[in-house]
Amino acid sequence: MELSRRRLLQGIAGAGAAGAGLALAGCAPSAAAAPTDVVDFHGPHQAGIATAVQDRLAFMTFDVTSTSRADVVELLKSWTTAAEAMTRGAAVPGAPPDDQVPPADTGEAAGLPAARLTVTVGFGPSLFTGPDGSDRFGLAARRPAAFVPLPALPGELLDPARSGGDIAVQACSDDPQVAFHAVRNLARIGRGTVVARWAELGFGKTSSTQGSADGDPGGTPRNLMGFKDGTRNIVGTDDAALDQHVWVADADGQGWLGGGSYLVARRIRMFVEPWDRDRLGDQEAVFGRFKDSGAPLTGKAEFDAPDYAATGADGPVIPANAHIRLASPENNGGLRILRRGYSYTDGIDATTGTLDAGLFFLAYMRDPNQFVTLQRKLGTSDALNEYIRHVGSGLFAVPPGTSGPDDWWGRALFS
Amino acid sequence: MELSRRRLLQGIAGAGAAGAGLALAGCAPSAAAAPTDVVDFHGPHQAGIATAVQDRLAFMTFDVTSTSRADVVELLKSWTTAAEAMTRGAAVPGAPPDDQVPPADTGEAAGLPAARLTVTVGFGPSLFTGPDGSDRFGLAARRPAAFVPLPALPGELLDPARSGGDIAVQACSDDPQVAFHAVRNLARIGRGTVVARWAELGFGKTSSTQGSADGDPGGTPRNLMGFKDGTRNIVGTDDAALDQHVWVADADGQGWLGGGSYLVARRIRMFVEPWDRDRLGDQEAVFGRFKDSGAPLTGKAEFDAPDYAATGADGPVIPANAHIRLASPENNGGLRILRRGYSYTDGIDATTGTLDAGLFFLAYMRDPNQFVTLQRKLGTSDALNEYIRHVGSGLFAVPPGTSGPDDWWGRALFS
Repeated sequence: MELSRRRLLQGIAGAGAAGAGLALAGCAPSAAAAPTDVVDFHGPHQAGIATAVQDRLAFMTFDVTSTSRADVVELLKSWTTAAEAMTRGAAVPGAPPDDQVPPADTGEAAGLPAARLTVTVGFGPSLFTGPDGSDRFGLAARRPAAFVPLPALPGELLDPARSGGDIAVQACSDDPQVAFHAVRNLARIGRGTVVARWAELGFGKTSSTQGSADGDPGGTPRNLMGFKDGTRNIVGTDDAALDQHVWVADADGQGWLGGGSYLVARRIRMFVEPWDRDRLGDQEAVFGRFKDSGAPLTGKAEFDAPDYAATGADGPVIPANAHIRLASPENNGGLRILRRGYSYTDGIDATTGTLDAGLFFLAYMRDPNQFVTLQRKLGTSDALNEYIRHVGSGLFAVPPGTSGPDDWWGRALFS
Repeated sequence: MELSRRRLLQGIAGAGAAGAGLALAGCAPSAAAAPTDVVDFHGPHQAGIATAVQDRLAFMTFDVTSTSRADVVELLKSWTTAAEAMTRGAAVPGAPPDDQVPPADTGEAAGLPAARLTVTVGFGPSLFTGPDGSDRFGLAARRPAAFVPLPALPGELLDPARSGGDIAVQACSDDPQVAFHAVRNLARIGRGTVVARWAELGFGKTSSTQGSADGDPGGTPRNLMGFKDGTRNIVGTDDAALDQHVWVADADGQGWLGGGSYLVARRIRMFVEPWDRDRLGDQEAVFGRFKDSGAPLTGKAEFDAPDYAATGADGPVIPANAHIRLASPENNGGLRILRRGYSYTDGIDATTGTLDAGLFFLAYMRDPNQFVTLQRKLGTSDALNEYIRHVGSGLFAVPPGTSGPDDWWGRALFS
């Protein structure tokens, strides 16, 4: 029996308190989600990659504790069913409400709209090959050659407790409670098969995938350094760019990943205190852009193309070590990745009294080497390195989307 | 020179990149905040107490590191000026943009609306009397008799790293980036005088202060146990109830606190995993309410008055140890507090793989003993204790509001 979040309320109310529906009808108009609040779940690619970036994020990785391949398959089937329902704004499907059993849905999103929820799943290298080299679930032969743990990279000092995981879940929504509810319910469904490893909430998106043409209503969002981020990001409707840079083609070696992607997650701590003491001109030189407008230092408007050849009295107008120069497709043989990062904070670093905050970087690409190439360059030379450090990391192979109600995440991998 | 967030953009754009205003005008319509987005800063009481509860919270406490009373006064003046501007959706005031100096505002809220931001400040007992009993800033004689650190209470296991503080700042807004921006900028302004002690983000409100009459548009929000919370909370427009239970009267002993209040902050960890495994009927018995409708077990609709005398075949319909019974004014001599709590999560508890999540409880009252009385009862007898623990705590005296541009937080205390 499936219940919408709204009908869940009325359904239980009917069983226990006949008049409750009346009070609810007067109090929860936001529960009537507009059609535009729902992102399609099924499709050739998982939602939550090219989807216009939602405002908030809940991210969680899991380690598989079961040794049974059948358990993993069952988990992925159950997760797919639950995620599809939650994406529509419905409750996690289950038996009709019964006060003798635990509810099938934890309930904190009851009455809330779908809020453009997407749930996106990826598999870590450790799902294919255990730390002892074992073929844990008979998947070792299905591991793409390119899919190996990220090498040690410059600019990082990784916390193992905030890195890795056998499976990753990215839930994005315009309502943080809806995003949290999604990962929490998958964690609940997974108990006995998986255990949560680490999690991060992102309170503000730092990338748009809408570009200048179709226009994110809020404009390009700003990161915690106060700069617009993702101005030149891949636009989610640019199919040619997505095919070239983001979606894995069948030809990449393993058919099950065709239409999928690779996700690199990096927890990037920003040293906001010294940054805040830096003068505006230096901040702008670090990025290579004006802080207010987001225009490149060689331009006037945000979406002006940077002119990396332009020189002034002191040398290049966009400095040699400016972030946008080093990261640019022009200076990396056309290399691009799709970013959908979020600002995070985890309170105060008690040892220093400084903010534990920064960028939770999420990027999708057709080959993990795209990120490795960029970070080798950025981690070595980027002027931004004085103010950031990569402190958490994960790499995940993201299977393609599901085709309909009988399909499930990773079916082709496990078939 | 003061700049609105919108004009900040255009102002700097005019200095550095003449065409940027055009691109911004097309991309950031949300920056044009509607008048209803702004909560009045000045008034007899600080905003953020009786104000209709905003969706998101950023909370931070600070310890004063300076030994100078003049530094504390200067800090409070600067904070008041900055908070008033941010509340209007303006940038932190400062000198005109100059690339030779750090910006006066960190910038991540540029282009965002005011989003009903309120910033509320309170003083801890430790500001009046140091741990060694010293009169740190000549305030010891101004400390109200009722304002002593909370005693040890049942149901708590407090982490000192998430408790206390000389000064607390509560920023609430419908946009979490606006709330975070506010506390971050106060922390920045305070450097050299204060150091941040602990912080918490609240991602979803769990209390309404709007009651059934004027109706919160989203209905009564739900906590992470999936239950509606705050159904019988004090309504923010009920002046009689606020006077009786929330605002400190001059007669309470110290005139400087008249029109102010006391804030009790408690980080309440929920053990969501065992809760999620509990059957629906037991969950409802724990609270004394139906989960879906929020109606008391003796009623049909959320706002029906609970009937604590009603009995069924098994005894009281609302059990003797039900949360709402033990916390109710009817069973505590009419005692009430104003709650404006938020759900929080801080990721995964690595030792157990469980969610570190729960309720960040904020409550305002005219005497700290209101909370002590309730928690002595709840911490001992509440059926909810099986599923929660108080793990962080703070008590703060919240001065009254400011009367206008020349006033500042705590002026009467320091005069």
